[in-house]
Amino acid sequence: MMRKSITLISLLFLAWSITQAQSDDDAFVLKQIHTAALEHGKAYTWLTYLSEEVGGRLAGSPQSKQAIAYTFGELDKLDNVAAWKQKCTVPVWERGEKEQVIIRQNGNIVKTLDVLALGYSGSTKRNGVQASIVEVHSLDEVDTLGFALDGKIVFYNRPFEVNEMNPFHGYGKAVDQRVYGPAKAAKYGAVACLVRSMTPNYDDVPHTGVTIFPDDVEPIPAIAITTNDATWLSNELKRKVRTDATVITSCKAKGNFKSYNVIGELTGSVSPDTVILIGGHLDSWDVGGGAHDDGAGCVQAMDVLNLLNQIGYTPRYTIRAVLFMNEESGLGGGKAYADSARTSNTFHLAAIESDAGGFTPRGFSMEADPEVFTRYYRKASDWLPLLEPYGLTLSQGGSGADIGPLKSMKGLLVGFKPDPQRYFDFHHTRNDRIQNVNERELELGAAAITSLVYLIDKYGLE
Amino acid sequence: MMRKSITLISLLFLAWSITQAQSDDDAFVLKQIHTAALEHGKAYTWLTYLSEEVGGRLAGSPQSKQAIAYTFGELDKLDNVAAWKQKCTVPVWERGEKEQVIIRQNGNIVKTLDVLALGYSGSTKRNGVQASIVEVHSLDEVDTLGFALDGKIVFYNRPFEVNEMNPFHGYGKAVDQRVYGPAKAAKYGAVACLVRSMTPNYDDVPHTGVTIFPDDVEPIPAIAITTNDATWLSNELKRKVRTDATVITSCKAKGNFKSYNVIGELTGSVSPDTVILIGGHLDSWDVGGGAHDDGAGCVQAMDVLNLLNQIGYTPRYTIRAVLFMNEESGLGGGKAYADSARTSNTFHLAAIESDAGGFTPRGFSMEADPEVFTRYYRKASDWLPLLEPYGLTLSQGGSGADIGPLKSMKGLLVGFKPDPQRYFDFHHTRNDRIQNVNERELELGAAAITSLVYLIDKYGLE
Repeated sequence: MMRKSITLISLLFLAWSITQAQSDDDAFVLKQIHTAALEHGKAYTWLTYLSEEVGGRLAGSPQSKQAIAYTFGELDKLDNVAAWKQKCTVPVWERGEKEQVIIRQNGNIVKTLDVLALGYSGSTKRNGVQASIVEVHSLDEVDTLGFALDGKIVFYNRPFEVNEMNPFHGYGKAVDQRVYGPAKAAKYGAVACLVRSMTPNYDDVPHTGVTIFPDDVEPIPAIAITTNDATWLSNELKRKVRTDATVITSCKAKGNFKSYNVIGELTGSVSPDTVILIGGHLDSWDVGGGAHDDGAGCVQAMDVLNLLNQIGYTPRYTIRAVLFMNEESGLGGGKAYADSARTSNTFHLAAIESDAGGFTPRGFSMEADPEVFTRYYRKASDWLPLLEPYGLTLSQGGSGADIGPLKSMKGLLVGFKPDPQRYFDFHHTRNDRIQNVNERELELGAAAITSLVYLIDKYGLE
Repeated sequence: MMRKSITLISLLFLAWSITQAQSDDDAFVLKQIHTAALEHGKAYTWLTYLSEEVGGRLAGSPQSKQAIAYTFGELDKLDNVAAWKQKCTVPVWERGEKEQVIIRQNGNIVKTLDVLALGYSGSTKRNGVQASIVEVHSLDEVDTLGFALDGKIVFYNRPFEVNEMNPFHGYGKAVDQRVYGPAKAAKYGAVACLVRSMTPNYDDVPHTGVTIFPDDVEPIPAIAITTNDATWLSNELKRKVRTDATVITSCKAKGNFKSYNVIGELTGSVSPDTVILIGGHLDSWDVGGGAHDDGAGCVQAMDVLNLLNQIGYTPRYTIRAVLFMNEESGLGGGKAYADSARTSNTFHLAAIESDAGGFTPRGFSMEADPEVFTRYYRKASDWLPLLEPYGLTLSQGGSGADIGPLKSMKGLLVGFKPDPQRYFDFHHTRNDRIQNVNERELELGAAAITSLVYLIDKYGLE
């Protein structure tokens, strides 16, 4: 009996030792990854080029072509990496000449606003359209007002809630005004639409973004105005002075064109047909440099391959960086990628998207088909003791727009979650530039994603 | 038996319900605190004034007097707050005229460096001191070289380790060069000392900070140079070209003077003699605006009182905001405060310091006398489910320099821990200004500290 107990204890101790040693090994690898990112990461250099040399890169624009060529070339230069481009179809829209909104009271110009037409805004004649302004706070209110809006300029002004702890939630609660508001106003005969910028801040920077006009709605001019101007305008409208706006835009939707996703991979040494995808989107709005949105995600995905090379790790599965085209206005790249994955029946064990900025890492949010989710999430939770020293937590929740179409394939979908507090300082603005990205934070993000890729590759998800 | 079981189950359910309800109430209060901070916090307004109207505020300087008057006035204006000033003694040092370091090779000027004399640096004659430069990497190396350094300029150039995940640890491993290096060099006859700036970045901004000359060592000029200049200089020295520096400083240590801690409190409604302290330090280096270091900590401490007022909470214990004077060069304020607390035998149940910048909150680190620590820490850990939704964790570790002298009084000492990645971008530089503080992040820090104060006040630590 005594001997048996000792044997059992010995076995348990052996098992514990092995687990412990394995965990020590993994801790060592995660430290190597983080060191490599901070000392030899390429993310910041790549992002500087994308943001400052290429600049804003709407799908189909000349800048998007430069970005495709640049990132393809950089991926192709990496040791062991196979790089290629994957065709996709993207709708092309151009801002045209600088849009204008001029406010008149009793016929006199009182203010020229600093504005940005929304993506897919319609255009006006050369001297614009002039009308009085009606402030609203919701799409429902527009339905209630109905054809009373005929011939008016509708002004959506429901604030982004400052007191939401996670500004992405505040964004989610406000953004219907921008995405669906202009088309709704157009339906009732509005001649133009102004939308309060999507940010919790009170400042002087307009935030653009997509607005959707269904095929049966003729696009009207749709314009983001700053939160300070929105506050000012709302106060002026309360004064009951006759207040008109003149709106001038020359935006053009030019139809569909061919573009590309850019892809680079380290081919798996054991199961090359199983893929762990990491991605971001290569297109951005035309203003600013698309640094946080989403140059950061692209260069982090690219750096995963570089960092695995740096630490000399040979993956079991294929580790594939995908820079998706056209996230901002149609998901052309994401859909093309998922179609191709389904056609070739390539199992994507996991897909991780970084599209929430290059800020200090806080963790990952995970989702999957309910049939597999609990198993996967439990497995990933085993790695928490390895991730926590880097300030990384796991949560259940959304992943990313580009990888969404992969969900039916029953892999794990992961959203990289950096700290969210500063994102809407820069999102879709002229200030989304490299000087607002912190090098260490960007690199630590690449390291966090690489760490998760390493753990999934080594242990699987079952 | 059946009835008994049911009764037991009912009792357990009742207990669970009460706990649950309590926890729901607390969650509601924490949400109220965070909302109040984001909507009605005063921290950012106060910090803007301290950083931009007052500016850098060395202990004993005219700016420090302005800061005392301003913060006292603002505390005094808050409802229910009693404000006063507490005398302390501080050593006064002045930078004097702009310091200079000019590099010559073979007698010709090749570079004028962008430098900052360290606090307590000695001075030179009007035309400075000129000598050849010897690069070293540690205090031990200086001991080994010994009197070979007589008549030389010693250049400390051991880098801040980039790959430390927490830059505060990198700082801890490098800063002995700045604090003790110049005195060590002086002991062996060095005529001046250059020190590589304490930052993981490679940039063009010098970082000052204190250096210590013991009473028996005559201060020599001690100068921070930028990391880019340090790298350049090190490469030049390898070239074996005769390289000299001319160092010119006119710093003055002026002896001890009277100054003040600024204090404001909400007096406890049940046990006014027990104190929960929150603090930061009001002095800063003279360059920049002392925004992150440590204006942020001061305004957050002040805002705790405002936020408790905003939510209408009546504390059981006395909640006391203390803005300590002279953290940067002697802890005059911290010592005076602790002396007074000991003399009056005022129990400080907890003392929380915010002195790691106004960045996005990540949690608290806690320490105490070993006799009480485990109990306190276990109690605080019960609150984790309430803190985690705000991204706050607890850890065991150091608290803050100003509250350190309170440790023997057996209260809990707490350091507020914001994200550490950007701190050494700004620390002790001309860039430590309001434009590098994010308003939401600063406010969320104030809310995090207020939340912990509320929980300690409501539940105690036993």
